Amino acid sequence: MKTYNAEIIGVGTELLLGQIANTNAQFISDQLAKTGINIYYHQAVGDNLKRVKDSFKQAATRSDFVFVTGGLGPTEDDLTREAFQALTGKHLVENKQIIEKISNYFDKTNRKMAANNRKQAQIFSDAVIIQNQVGTAPGMIVTYQQSLFIFMPGVPKEMKPMMLNFVLPYLKENFQLKNLIKSRMLKFIGISESQLETDVKVLIDKQENPTIAPLASDGEVALRITAKAENEIIADQLIEHAENEIKELVGPYFYGYDGTTINDTVLHLLAEKNLTIASAESLTGGLFADALVSIPGAGKTFMGSIVSYEESTKSSVLGVSEQTIKTEGTVSDACAYEMAKQASVKFDASIGISFTGVAGPDKAEGKDVGTVFISIYQGENRVLTKSFYFPGERDTIRNRTVKKGLELLYYWLIE
Amino acid sequence: MKTYNAEIIGVGTELLLGQIANTNAQFISDQLAKTGINIYYHQAVGDNLKRVKDSFKQAATRSDFVFVTGGLGPTEDDLTREAFQALTGKHLVENKQIIEKISNYFDKTNRKMAANNRKQAQIFSDAVIIQNQVGTAPGMIVTYQQSLFIFMPGVPKEMKPMMLNFVLPYLKENFQLKNLIKSRMLKFIGISESQLETDVKVLIDKQENPTIAPLASDGEVALRITAKAENEIIADQLIEHAENEIKELVGPYFYGYDGTTINDTVLHLLAEKNLTIASAESLTGGLFADALVSIPGAGKTFMGSIVSYEESTKSSVLGVSEQTIKTEGTVSDACAYEMAKQASVKFDASIGISFTGVAGPDKAEGKDVGTVFISIYQGENRVLTKSFYFPGERDTIRNRTVKKGLELLYYWLIE
Repeated sequence: MKTYNAEIIGVGTELLLGQIANTNAQFISDQLAKTGINIYYHQAVGDNLKRVKDSFKQAATRSDFVFVTGGLGPTEDDLTREAFQALTGKHLVENKQIIEKISNYFDKTNRKMAANNRKQAQIFSDAVIIQNQVGTAPGMIVTYQQSLFIFMPGVPKEMKPMMLNFVLPYLKENFQLKNLIKSRMLKFIGISESQLETDVKVLIDKQENPTIAPLASDGEVALRITAKAENEIIADQLIEHAENEIKELVGPYFYGYDGTTINDTVLHLLAEKNLTIASAESLTGGLFADALVSIPGAGKTFMGSIVSYEESTKSSVLGVSEQTIKTEGTVSDACAYEMAKQASVKFDASIGISFTGVAGPDKAEGKDVGTVFISIYQGENRVLTKSFYFPGERDTIRNRTVKKGLELLYYWLIE
Repeated sequence: MKTYNAEIIGVGTELLLGQIANTNAQFISDQLAKTGINIYYHQAVGDNLKRVKDSFKQAATRSDFVFVTGGLGPTEDDLTREAFQALTGKHLVENKQIIEKISNYFDKTNRKMAANNRKQAQIFSDAVIIQNQVGTAPGMIVTYQQSLFIFMPGVPKEMKPMMLNFVLPYLKENFQLKNLIKSRMLKFIGISESQLETDVKVLIDKQENPTIAPLASDGEVALRITAKAENEIIADQLIEHAENEIKELVGPYFYGYDGTTINDTVLHLLAEKNLTIASAESLTGGLFADALVSIPGAGKTFMGSIVSYEESTKSSVLGVSEQTIKTEGTVSDACAYEMAKQASVKFDASIGISFTGVAGPDKAEGKDVGTVFISIYQGENRVLTKSFYFPGERDTIRNRTVKKGLELLYYWLIE
C-alpha cells in the first residue's frame, strides 16, 4: 500500500509579522491526519516572489502533496500564481466563468469591480478548478513533476469548505487513501507527566502501531493512542489493546476519554450520587465556581460560592471565627476547614470545598507565594484538609489550585 | 546599518497532526517585527531526528537568527538537543544548577523526580543559558556557523517570559537592532468595531506611516498604530500625531493603552476614589470576581462575591426577598437590583454589582437565552439597572456579560 507525504505552505507576510497564527496549517493537518496521509513539514513564507518560488521548489523535491494557502487574491502582494509559474513555466489563462462570477458578486453587493479582480480568474491551463463557495478566488490542483500542488485561498472560511467539500473527496477518489489513522486520548489526573511516562515506558519503547504519546497541560496529563489500519474495525482493535495495556499500568489515574474534562467528570459524579456542592474561595476568587458553572446543567448540583477575598469578609460574610483568623491566620489548615464547613452550611450543600492561600505577587502572613490550603467538608465525619506548594505566577497558582481541588474531589467521589 | 534575517522552527508532531496551532511562531514573529528584524520563514517539523536536523541545516544557510521552540522536554520524543548535536558535533554537558533546580521543584511539590528529567539539564557547552521562570527546562542560545540558534520550550507560558525577559534584551544588547518598528495600542469600550472603523475611516484611508489597524475582541475594540523609524524619538512623534487625530474623532470611547485592560482600569479608578466593590453573581458564576482577583493588589478594593447560582440560594444566602423571586422571577430588574444591594450590604462595600440572566442552553423563566440584567448599587440614591440581549453560546454570553458590567462600571466611575 502506497503511503503519501504532504507538506503545507502558508503564503503571506501577515503570518511572518505575527498578525495571525497559521490556523490553516492546523486545520489541513487535522483533516489529513484522519486520512492517513503523513504530514512532514509546515512552512510559512512572505509575499516575496523568490522565496515563495524557493519554497515550492523544495516542497516538490520531498512531498507528494503540497498544500498552499494564501496569495491568490487580487492585490499586487498576492504572488502565489506568479511564483508557481516562475518555477514551472506553466501557462495562465483567464477563465470566463470565473470572471462572470466575480462581476456578478460585485453587482450583487452594489460595488464596482476593480480591474485587479480579473487576476483572480487566472487559472493554470492544466489545473483542476476548486470552486469557491464563499468568496471569489477559486482554488486549483496542478501537477508538477512528482508532486500534486493544491492551491487554496488564505481566508479560513473560504479554504475550509474547499478542503472538506472538494479536496478531500478528490484525493480519496484519485489516490485510494485507504490507510486510515484513528486516535483516542486517555486522560489522567494525580500523576505527573514524567511519572506517567516512566510507568508506561515499556509500552512506549515497544510501540510501533499504535503509537503512544504523552501530552501535558496545567496539572493534567494525557496519553494519545494513534493507530494506522486499513479500516475502522482493525484500528479500534489496535487502540483497544493498547488502552488495556496502559490501564494495567496506570489505570487508577485514568478518568476519561478525549473531550472529557475533569470539571465535567466531577460534576457528573456529584449528580450521579445526588450530592450538591458549594465553595468558599479566597485566592481562587470565583475560578472554582466558574469551572462548574461553565458546564451546561450545573444548576442542580452546584449551589454557589462565597468569594471572601478581603480578609474581614471571611468572618463577616462567610462566618469563619475571628479567633481562628487571629490565632492561625487566613492561610491555614484551620481557616480552610472552617471555610469549607461554612460553604456547606450556608448553601445547604452536601459538600463544601474551600481554597485559601497566597497567589502573590507578595508573601502574606509570613507564608510564601504559592502556599495553598484546600479543604473538603462533607459533615463532621468526612473532612480532608491538605496544603500544597504551587510554583509560578499569580494566574498559574490560581489555576493549579482549582485543578488540584477538582483532582481531590474526583478521588473523594470515587472512593 | 546591518539588517538581520530570522526564521522560526516549531518542533513537535502535535503541530503536524493539527492538534495545536503554531501560536509560538506568531508570538515570536510579533515580538521580532517590533525590533525591525526581518522574519523570512516559519517551519514546523515533527519529532523525527533526521527531519529536525535537516531543518536546522537549511536554516543555518539562510538565517542570522534561528528561533526553535519545542523538543526540549524530558521524554524520548524530545529530540531538539540530539538533532542539533548531530548537525554540529557540539558537546552536551549536564548543568549542576539546573539539576538542583529540577530536583528542588520535585521536592517542593512532594513528587519523585523521574530519571528522564535529568535530560532537561543537558546544555551545550558553549551555550548561553536562558532561565526558565515557570517550568524546569531552560532555554539556550548557541552559535553555529553564521547563525545564532535560540532554543526555547514549546509550552507557550514558559517560552513567552523567556522571549520577553531574556532573548529580546539579549539581542538588543548584542546586535544593535536599529531599524525600529514601534507600535501603540489605543483601547476603546462602548463602541462597536464597525462603528469605530467607520468613524476613523478617513484616517485609515490616508495611512502610510504610521499604519492604523482595528482589532476586536469580545466586547472591546482597539486601534493599533504602528510606525517605522530610525529612532524612538521619530517613531514616538509619528505615533503621537496619529493618536491625536484618532482622539479627535473617537476620544470619548478611549480608556487606555496597550497592556491596560478594562479590568485594571476599573480597579484603579475604584482605588483612586477610595471605593470598595462586591458582587452578586448568578449566570456569570464567579467570572466577574475572577476578573478583579486576577489583578495583583485587588485585595483592598474588591471585597468579595456571592455566587448564588442555584435559585433558592438567592434568598437563603444572598438575602433577595422570596416575594421578589416569586412575583418577578430571578431574571428580572427587581431581582438584579436586590442582588446588587445585598452584595453592597453583606460585604460592607461602597458599590454592589449584580449579574443575573439566562446563559443557556435552555430558556429559563420564559426568558430567551442571552437575556441578562445588570445592576449597580451605590446607596439608594445612586442605582442603575439595565437589561441586555447577548447572542451566542453559553461562555460567550457569560463573558460578554462580565465585559458589559465592567463597561458600565467604567462610565459610572468617570462620570
